[in-house]
Amino acid sequence: MNKFLELAIAGVQQLVPYVPGKPVEELQRELGIAEVIKLASNENPLGTGAKVAAAIQATLPELTRYPDGSGFALKAALSAKLKVAPEQITLGNGSSEILELVMRTFVTPELEVVFSQHAFALYPILTQAVGAKAKVVPAKSYGHDLTAMRKQIGPQTRLVFIANPNNPTGTLLDKDELEKFIASLPAHVLCVLDEAYYEFVDPAVRTESLAWPIRYPNLIIARTFSKAYGLAGLRIGYGISSPDIADLLNRVRQPFNCSMLALAAAEAALGDSDYLNQTVALNSAGMAQLTEAFKELDLPWIPSSGNFVSVDVKQAALPIYEALLRKGVIVRPVANYEMPKHLRVSIGTERENAIFINALREVLSGV
Amino acid sequence: MNKFLELAIAGVQQLVPYVPGKPVEELQRELGIAEVIKLASNENPLGTGAKVAAAIQATLPELTRYPDGSGFALKAALSAKLKVAPEQITLGNGSSEILELVMRTFVTPELEVVFSQHAFALYPILTQAVGAKAKVVPAKSYGHDLTAMRKQIGPQTRLVFIANPNNPTGTLLDKDELEKFIASLPAHVLCVLDEAYYEFVDPAVRTESLAWPIRYPNLIIARTFSKAYGLAGLRIGYGISSPDIADLLNRVRQPFNCSMLALAAAEAALGDSDYLNQTVALNSAGMAQLTEAFKELDLPWIPSSGNFVSVDVKQAALPIYEALLRKGVIVRPVANYEMPKHLRVSIGTERENAIFINALREVLSGV
Repeated sequence: MNKFLELAIAGVQQLVPYVPGKPVEELQRELGIAEVIKLASNENPLGTGAKVAAAIQATLPELTRYPDGSGFALKAALSAKLKVAPEQITLGNGSSEILELVMRTFVTPELEVVFSQHAFALYPILTQAVGAKAKVVPAKSYGHDLTAMRKQIGPQTRLVFIANPNNPTGTLLDKDELEKFIASLPAHVLCVLDEAYYEFVDPAVRTESLAWPIRYPNLIIARTFSKAYGLAGLRIGYGISSPDIADLLNRVRQPFNCSMLALAAAEAALGDSDYLNQTVALNSAGMAQLTEAFKELDLPWIPSSGNFVSVDVKQAALPIYEALLRKGVIVRPVANYEMPKHLRVSIGTERENAIFINALREVLSGV
Repeated sequence: MNKFLELAIAGVQQLVPYVPGKPVEELQRELGIAEVIKLASNENPLGTGAKVAAAIQATLPELTRYPDGSGFALKAALSAKLKVAPEQITLGNGSSEILELVMRTFVTPELEVVFSQHAFALYPILTQAVGAKAKVVPAKSYGHDLTAMRKQIGPQTRLVFIANPNNPTGTLLDKDELEKFIASLPAHVLCVLDEAYYEFVDPAVRTESLAWPIRYPNLIIARTFSKAYGLAGLRIGYGISSPDIADLLNRVRQPFNCSMLALAAAEAALGDSDYLNQTVALNSAGMAQLTEAFKELDLPWIPSSGNFVSVDVKQAALPIYEALLRKGVIVRPVANYEMPKHLRVSIGTERENAIFINALREVLSGV
């Protein structure tokens, strides 16, 4: 029994931390396997880009100095590329920190937070950490049911999370329905639109959401450099909001929340459109490779707009996950998302995908 | 008027952010001066160590992967070097995050936080951010008055901050008095002992505090890689506490709060005793260089155990600070610490110290 539990704030007493994907080194240690394929954390399979590596090299001599706490250069680059004002931007230690800052700035224990079933696992954890009440709205075909979510919003609601595309299901909302939902929100309700996987979405159907925070000042868009920009290890993301909300989030964040190398790398990544294009092309090809295999194996999957796909293995998924581990392939079980028969598979390189498909085929046929 | 202010939690409504030292680039832009000397943020003047640079190089190919959220390797290295159990360690995005995690885990608006006048500026800011009540205890000879602080601790007190050495005064507490103070704390009061400048303290007088959290399980020691280890740009620090407190802090932190490069660099820095020894030697020599000059200029200073010294310029310090800026020298005004006649000067290289001394001499004689 933890002796300090009763001194902790009420939310923390019930808090169960986020479980990350199993690290490659851990499985190597456990099984003594040299080659391990990790398709468990929606990471970019392309490896570190040359421009990012060069930017980090150039910054190495400065590490004894504090970072620019205002993030002047990265905000200027984001502002130019995204056509938003620098005053609308909040930089975070990953976009997860943006979500956390919104929570800590606006949500108290007597308030409610609304999000969807099967939505990103950090939403309930962050809600719990401040001791607020989570209202989880049943999903519709694995996606957000905006009509049902709207009905759950009441006088005590302060925040609603929308993940678009959603992780771990990959579902995408219709842009007109989404805008209608945001427009319908009462003034006391903030909306975080979590677009961590935005860059992977087909431009023909994706939401041009960046203009919205001016039209709907209670909207905060969260984006990340961890996925399509390939900087998961560096921890950097950003929020786009009305300047008023950004002002408050910037008061609450630590003065040096983003590291100097994260700032430099993100600026370089933002300017490397070749890397981004290659990433998206590799992802499309890999998605086709995986879904064709699922079809052949007669396994249903949830059509995904992200860099991952959740496949229904038509039986309890955990033993399949464990059997794949023993073959050196790490994917993600999603029973904690109320999807006990699904496995979430991140899109890898062609070779990684092939190794996974082969391992899955063997496991399903009992080899 | 910020339209979202009234939706923010009570503490945030009054929050005034931390003001960092003026960045070199900013002064260069403003004044068109090429050479600027920054002695304003207690940074390590030695520059990035070769072992740190090599560790970052080696990690570059992995940046698309998430960091090890458990910090396994760095905790093992800290555990071996500091003789504490890995379960006692919490890794933070700078030691400032450790302070923040303690606040967010244990302090609610109805509780009180006790700290000293002239203590680190982040303590009142973090207290304000959760909306708790700050009890600021008048200092004694610029240092913590532990007897007076103990008297301010009551049933509503949940946390007391002790900075040792203190920033910006550099004062050091007697180790027996400090231990007596910690031993006297009631069970409902946690103590953060902020040892950001620990490595600069003369070993003959410094507190061997690392064994204390087992003896006094309500104690959390905070240390950083930003100062003597030269990693301010990377944002990494740690807390040492009882395993029970570490367990709670680790529940509240973000799953990937420390970047992959910060983890790798900190591990390398910890193993680079040459760099640490050089840093400490350079600091001792620079402290002598500065204090001799102050003596010659007939300026009193506060004897400091850190890598900085606060000097009394015997007049309003802000105009002196501004005159130094115009000569390309950035130091730190500390009027916000209720020390309007002092300037805090970080110890630089011999050359940087000499440039500062020369500039100060000119400014004081009206040149």
